[in-house]
Amino acid sequence: MSNRPDRVTIVEEGPREGFQSEPPGIPTQEKLRLIDALSETGLSAIVCASFVNQKTLPQMADAEAIAQQLLKRPGIDYFGLWLNRKGFERARASGLRLRAIVSASASATFLMKNNRRTPEEGLNDQRDLCLAYDEAGLPAGPAYIFTAFGCNYEGDMPIGTVTGCLRKLLATVRDTGRDVSHVVLCDTVGYGNPALVERLVGEVRSIWPELPVGLHLHDTRGLGLANAAAGLQLGVDYFDTSIGGLGGCPFAGNRSAAGNIATEELVFLCEEMGISTGIDLEALLEAARVAGEIVGHPLPSRLLAAGSLARFRNVL
Amino acid sequence: MSNRPDRVTIVEEGPREGFQSEPPGIPTQEKLRLIDALSETGLSAIVCASFVNQKTLPQMADAEAIAQQLLKRPGIDYFGLWLNRKGFERARASGLRLRAIVSASASATFLMKNNRRTPEEGLNDQRDLCLAYDEAGLPAGPAYIFTAFGCNYEGDMPIGTVTGCLRKLLATVRDTGRDVSHVVLCDTVGYGNPALVERLVGEVRSIWPELPVGLHLHDTRGLGLANAAAGLQLGVDYFDTSIGGLGGCPFAGNRSAAGNIATEELVFLCEEMGISTGIDLEALLEAARVAGEIVGHPLPSRLLAAGSLARFRNVL
Repeated sequence: MSNRPDRVTIVEEGPREGFQSEPPGIPTQEKLRLIDALSETGLSAIVCASFVNQKTLPQMADAEAIAQQLLKRPGIDYFGLWLNRKGFERARASGLRLRAIVSASASATFLMKNNRRTPEEGLNDQRDLCLAYDEAGLPAGPAYIFTAFGCNYEGDMPIGTVTGCLRKLLATVRDTGRDVSHVVLCDTVGYGNPALVERLVGEVRSIWPELPVGLHLHDTRGLGLANAAAGLQLGVDYFDTSIGGLGGCPFAGNRSAAGNIATEELVFLCEEMGISTGIDLEALLEAARVAGEIVGHPLPSRLLAAGSLARFRNVL
Repeated sequence: MSNRPDRVTIVEEGPREGFQSEPPGIPTQEKLRLIDALSETGLSAIVCASFVNQKTLPQMADAEAIAQQLLKRPGIDYFGLWLNRKGFERARASGLRLRAIVSASASATFLMKNNRRTPEEGLNDQRDLCLAYDEAGLPAGPAYIFTAFGCNYEGDMPIGTVTGCLRKLLATVRDTGRDVSHVVLCDTVGYGNPALVERLVGEVRSIWPELPVGLHLHDTRGLGLANAAAGLQLGVDYFDTSIGGLGGCPFAGNRSAAGNIATEELVFLCEEMGISTGIDLEALLEAARVAGEIVGHPLPSRLLAAGSLARFRNVL
């Protein structure tokens, strides 16, 4: 029997993780055009920018400008992201919505290569962030576990390593008197498969039955939607996605990581199975076309290429 | 609980359905090169050509030449396909391996547009084929149900229409004293989703518990692998696939139908979940590269773009 949820929450990562994976130089006005199109879809959460070092990530140098100029619609959370205290203070000053995100990486090598941090330094950063979140009066936020399904430096990830990593992160957060709202397991580089989703989600739930589990999936090897469907079968009701699959390129074997699963393909999957998303698929496909125009190359989404079923159903 | 099979049978459709969906003009030698590469992978069944009217389908005009020139390896079934008695006689004369295939379409409109047959005419063709199969001494073969998940002319397909169509086809075959080996439900134009796979496979099994069910899935809207995974969960152990996703183009919204699910993505899905395919994934990716070279445009397979996990695992 299935434990499918009645409703899922989808957090749109395209303007942040998607654009961040494209070459630098996308005009701020174009990013705002995409955020505007996404605001017409029924999405309730859009991650708009990342407050990181602009030398490391010039793609996000306009984070403040995005925050300042975007047209906020009621009922939508326009989020910022950061990796450390300095980034958090920038995000706080920007006026974007804040989530008390904490994170860790199951692969220590990935954390070092990506964030130049040992696991201990990473946990110290999270402790520091928790103090800042408290000061800012933020409620509990999500705990992200990167490379939870595997890592290109360390290969397959033993489940005990993932739960060990989460255990230390939770202890660090709880030591500060705070807690997390849910855990998000990230298939950062495309090692997931439906059986692994079952094992990993099952193991996390058996240790922390009170902790809701979300998924952040990349479609590197074609199993992204199959993995999402496996999550839905288990009752997972929180997903990060990227419009059009922005941030990935279906023909770029040499890119470091393919994009998140496409928002419209997850919405299509859910709505076809009777799971409510609150999102208008046709408006979402329009936003995906905007995203494709902006980056000037085809996006990975197959649904974007084929179109939805509405035009065939409406004929009748 | 899962009813995943220990082992699946995969029938490679690339040289037939894949090349048939490409523009005409692919040289026979190139087709043979792909069949040769596929023969190195462990695949046990390759559909090599279709014996159809070459005015309607010039892509398959070299069916006899393919049959004559291909290098047959032991342990591999090199199949031909046909739609009617005349095609069957050509296939029989060609020396390709024969399967006693019968077929029907859940959508009558699709059958008329695609094969210029009313449902009754279609059933008469199948009766005629059964007599020819008997004459040729062929054992029972598969029953294909086209548009079983939906149709661009008729929209969503009521499950009763699909089972009604299968019932008539089975009655026609059994009237001739023959039977079928299994039924293959085809998502011809990308209407499937995991919940529909469950309902449709479940309904067919509840009516015909003795009849094994296979799936022929197209990845039109990004759910192909999710639908295959849903089939695996139900114990489905027979799939048609196409190397590289040949026959589809991820950016061609105006093509009549996207390609089958990519053979290598299904093999990856299965092997990662511990389901045996008997196929060497690296050799399969090499064959997919050959397919891409031959058609001269990127193929839909994401795994082909990203590569398998072997190189990351082998580092350790």
